[in-house]
Amino acid sequence: MNITVLGCGRWGTFHAWYAHRIGHNVTLWGRPGSPHLAELISQRQNEYLHMPLDIALTADLTAALAGADIVIISISAQQLRSLAKQIRATRLTHMPFVLCMKGLETGSGKRLSTIMKEELGEDARTVVWVGPGHVQDFLSGMPNCMVMASDNKERTRRIADIFSSPLIRFYYGTDLLGTEIGAAAKNVYGIAAGMLDGFHYSSLKGALMARGTHELSRLVAAMGGSAMTVYGLSHLGDYEATLFSQHSNNRRFGEDFILQKPFNKLAEGVYTCEALMDLSAQWQVELPITQAIYDILFQHKDPAEELRTLFLRSQKEE
Amino acid sequence: MNITVLGCGRWGTFHAWYAHRIGHNVTLWGRPGSPHLAELISQRQNEYLHMPLDIALTADLTAALAGADIVIISISAQQLRSLAKQIRATRLTHMPFVLCMKGLETGSGKRLSTIMKEELGEDARTVVWVGPGHVQDFLSGMPNCMVMASDNKERTRRIADIFSSPLIRFYYGTDLLGTEIGAAAKNVYGIAAGMLDGFHYSSLKGALMARGTHELSRLVAAMGGSAMTVYGLSHLGDYEATLFSQHSNNRRFGEDFILQKPFNKLAEGVYTCEALMDLSAQWQVELPITQAIYDILFQHKDPAEELRTLFLRSQKEE
Repeated sequence: MNITVLGCGRWGTFHAWYAHRIGHNVTLWGRPGSPHLAELISQRQNEYLHMPLDIALTADLTAALAGADIVIISISAQQLRSLAKQIRATRLTHMPFVLCMKGLETGSGKRLSTIMKEELGEDARTVVWVGPGHVQDFLSGMPNCMVMASDNKERTRRIADIFSSPLIRFYYGTDLLGTEIGAAAKNVYGIAAGMLDGFHYSSLKGALMARGTHELSRLVAAMGGSAMTVYGLSHLGDYEATLFSQHSNNRRFGEDFILQKPFNKLAEGVYTCEALMDLSAQWQVELPITQAIYDILFQHKDPAEELRTLFLRSQKEE
Repeated sequence: MNITVLGCGRWGTFHAWYAHRIGHNVTLWGRPGSPHLAELISQRQNEYLHMPLDIALTADLTAALAGADIVIISISAQQLRSLAKQIRATRLTHMPFVLCMKGLETGSGKRLSTIMKEELGEDARTVVWVGPGHVQDFLSGMPNCMVMASDNKERTRRIADIFSSPLIRFYYGTDLLGTEIGAAAKNVYGIAAGMLDGFHYSSLKGALMARGTHELSRLVAAMGGSAMTVYGLSHLGDYEATLFSQHSNNRRFGEDFILQKPFNKLAEGVYTCEALMDLSAQWQVELPITQAIYDILFQHKDPAEELRTLFLRSQKEE
């Protein structure tokens, strides 16, 4: 099949490499002026992988979308609405769009599949592809299970089967809302985990796991999803990669924040934290851990005090 | 209060040290001939801690129990029935017994609180004290949250409040069955985690967390407990300590098993795995991960093949 990947960062290049590896014709698009794209064109590699020569590289969105059977999108979540508007302008919106990204829109708290519908129309065929796995591990041959979900069971199965291989084995998600909220929110708990690591309170990550999933499952249920989705691959299943791994940008961001090390860019979980606070207010569900991270990041509250209060001041039923 | 601790291994000595630290009169008992007890008597320390001089050390069970307001038990789970019989023989069975141990009886699959009732009588007042935390971390001052549960809400609260301090903050568990099964079973997933580490498949620990909690929650629900208890501190909350920590005996056992390193003693999870297979048959609930670990440990199945089948051969709804 003809697979087009939009976005040429760490995950975008991996998805292009992976689709090619399992036998598809692949086009990889980067925005005009993208330094990542320039590097790939001139070097045919980045710090993670060598890009096979028969993967087409382009900054022309119309050319990238024309003839694509399936489009994979892997960009920063806050850029999705703008990219979706550009896709709309090409009128090439009939094919399935697979979102390989985790986040919520700040200012609205909207899910990424909602943004796609708003910008491409109600009949936009979106699938989300989330779950555990590090680019570095996949490239070294370490397999993992991931999950796909959409609002159409047949579409979910069809797309999952197309991308399944011994390297990535898919489960079919049946709750799109829970899958998207869960996938996005794990980055917030990743930041919290990094903060605990920064204080050498790493052993509190156990309580973080039990209580993070709990607060989020209440939000997902209130929004009409299934509380149990949070305990599946898209959220809890991604905790190894997010709360414990040295590869996790969000965990690293939280740790560096506590150690007062400079960081190059905000982690996606920072935006997600803000968006989750909107959802918390909108659906009247308290999210104590997310609130504490928000207060630390946005309200300049004392991290040590906030984290201690969170885990060590209460005495109540679970 | 007068607190007696039965068992002078790593956790038993910690509990004695902790009860003393929060202001109680403490007696620590070890079985006659225990090398741990001999070391404590002669050195007043073990590899983890210095034992304060005003903690009484004894191998006389009747003397240890006489006058105790609360008894903490921290021994190997498979030894509990035998110790309970000895306690019964002293007729000193009226005080609350707090079980700081995680396991199930092999051959019967029975919970530890059930063993206490069978041996001490139906009116035995048992409380379980489980959840995350490493001895080494507590001794270095790192706090954690833990959980207590019993079949009597008032007793749970009273005992939890007595042992609460800034170092250990308790939650009140409301589901004794789920708390005990969950606390025991996490050691089995700890062994599975170690096996994944041994194969450098550590990133599959995310899927292990999502699917381990899922299979166990189905068992707990079938047995009459609450499926959600598994996602609380006693099980999921203990995954950091069990699936990720270098301090975890069970994780280490699984890793050493794969690396074919010699190990000094079987980890408790080996017994628990066997007991869980009994419960699986008894309650007709499939436990695929536990089954795989059982097949590897007891049936000499190939670990690489079993683990790959477990995580990478299926394609289905979550």
